[in-house]
Amino acid sequence: MKKVTVIGGGTGTFVVLSGLKSHELDLAAIVTMMDSGGSTGRLRDQLGVLPPGDLRQCLVALSDATELWRKLFLYRFENGDLKGHNFGNIFLSALEKVCDDYNTVIDTASYVLNTKGKVIPVTFEKTHLCVEYENGTVIKGEGNIDEDNPERTRIKKAYLEPEATVNPQAVSRIQESDYIIIGPGDLYTSIVPVLLVDHLKDEIKNSKAKVIYNLNLMTKAGQTTGYTGQDFIHDLATYIGREPDYIVVNSGEVPDAIIKWYESHEESPVQNNLHENGFKGTIIEEDIISRAHIEKNTSDQLTRSILRHDTKKLTPILMDIINQKI
Amino acid sequence: MKKVTVIGGGTGTFVVLSGLKSHELDLAAIVTMMDSGGSTGRLRDQLGVLPPGDLRQCLVALSDATELWRKLFLYRFENGDLKGHNFGNIFLSALEKVCDDYNTVIDTASYVLNTKGKVIPVTFEKTHLCVEYENGTVIKGEGNIDEDNPERTRIKKAYLEPEATVNPQAVSRIQESDYIIIGPGDLYTSIVPVLLVDHLKDEIKNSKAKVIYNLNLMTKAGQTTGYTGQDFIHDLATYIGREPDYIVVNSGEVPDAIIKWYESHEESPVQNNLHENGFKGTIIEEDIISRAHIEKNTSDQLTRSILRHDTKKLTPILMDIINQKI
Repeated sequence: MKKVTVIGGGTGTFVVLSGLKSHELDLAAIVTMMDSGGSTGRLRDQLGVLPPGDLRQCLVALSDATELWRKLFLYRFENGDLKGHNFGNIFLSALEKVCDDYNTVIDTASYVLNTKGKVIPVTFEKTHLCVEYENGTVIKGEGNIDEDNPERTRIKKAYLEPEATVNPQAVSRIQESDYIIIGPGDLYTSIVPVLLVDHLKDEIKNSKAKVIYNLNLMTKAGQTTGYTGQDFIHDLATYIGREPDYIVVNSGEVPDAIIKWYESHEESPVQNNLHENGFKGTIIEEDIISRAHIEKNTSDQLTRSILRHDTKKLTPILMDIINQKI
Repeated sequence: MKKVTVIGGGTGTFVVLSGLKSHELDLAAIVTMMDSGGSTGRLRDQLGVLPPGDLRQCLVALSDATELWRKLFLYRFENGDLKGHNFGNIFLSALEKVCDDYNTVIDTASYVLNTKGKVIPVTFEKTHLCVEYENGTVIKGEGNIDEDNPERTRIKKAYLEPEATVNPQAVSRIQESDYIIIGPGDLYTSIVPVLLVDHLKDEIKNSKAKVIYNLNLMTKAGQTTGYTGQDFIHDLATYIGREPDYIVVNSGEVPDAIIKWYESHEESPVQNNLHENGFKGTIIEEDIISRAHIEKNTSDQLTRSILRHDTKKLTPILMDIINQKI
């Protein structure tokens, strides 16, 4: 079976994992452990636990348990002391308190969620993401970079504080992988944090695995403001030491109303200029937008997650690459 | 297999269930749903869920899962937003939010905890325990009756507000039972609430089952102040419509230091005057005190739970009754 490893965290990784889990693959996710926002950030600060949010997303994405268990793990309390906390986050935090080591936490959660694949935290150490912008500003903490970040200059440098030792399982997984899938996901808050850990960059650089990059649909204010496709590839290449072998790019049209909403938040569709400048890999251009998601959002109210990759459209493309049909 | 049904909630019921679960019995617990104190009370008020605390205790008591799962369900958060909340309570509350009916909540929790026996909430309706004292004072809410209750006159009457419809499973379970075990547990806050639901009293009165009552070790200020053994039996008989067939009474000595501590809280060992007044059932007098518990408490600091029944001492007595050796 082909060994496929997905790198990241957040909703983009959720889309990829939940699509691939029903295929005959040896699947794993190497997950960022640098989240510091929202429920995860509060649990991290108040309880001294490792950030559970991205792990929870990946575990649920890979879950083959009944709908009930997946709903339970994604359930967010709406009132009282627990308001804003996600049950899955609380579960992982409580488990960490009663387990001797974090592998037992993952194993127990994987067991109850019946995950079809392995979830590997990139590190077991507590660390924070920091970014330095071209104008010299430094922001510390994933949550601060991700949410309501007013910076509009480019990120010059990302680093971890303190540096973190890589989980040896992540290293051996990269070494064994046939395919490494990166993204979709916010470049600096979901993907780069994994690549910053210890010598993982070198492992990816030297790996025999083909690297597939799912290019973002939209830029993200505060981290990839004004980025074109080439900008994304350039920055990614800095953190993995090579260019991806495949880039999956959206060619589907985004409705004007949606573009306008994003523009009011200083975000825009990622311009596809990948054919310029002699990129040597394979570029796959398809309509991969989730229309259901657009409809749900516009009929309700526009939120940050209007535009999503459609797992039903993206998965066959990834499987074609993995099965060498592309 | 003998059908044995335990009635109550709290630590006393925990002791009985955890001892009986390893025996060849058809075991069930009919559990009070009137708790309104502590973590349970906050969850109930803030989230509008049924009170999870007593259910959680019974589920864990009957659990045959690994030590880890039982530790997890009893884990209490010590800091932050979740401070004072018990993971098991949060689990049941979140499950209630994502399940269509409460039987699914119980089934799911029973599955993950691998319970050896059935846990039956006495009602699925939200109701509060109220007590009226001889001096006319009325206190509403189990939490208010249980904790820091300044009343020292006798409880004249206990009732539910609003009245609650009994869970039909509780009725059929009583009808089928060979033995009903009541206590140990606080008479008015753990036992009577179950007996107040709808026509459950009549079911117990008319049941073919033998009733075993584990008499409390100590009186409880605010609900059984100054009670003797006969007082306990008298009040219990009012709420089950008959006298118990067996009473298990402690004859072990309680250390003076422990008695003094309780006396400073206006509580004292329950005086055994059961042989007076022509009680027709069987009285079993044995040392059933947990010495380990006394040692743990006195070496650390004295807390409310200094004196406990010892599951290793109590269980063989209960099994002798059930196997008709007594």
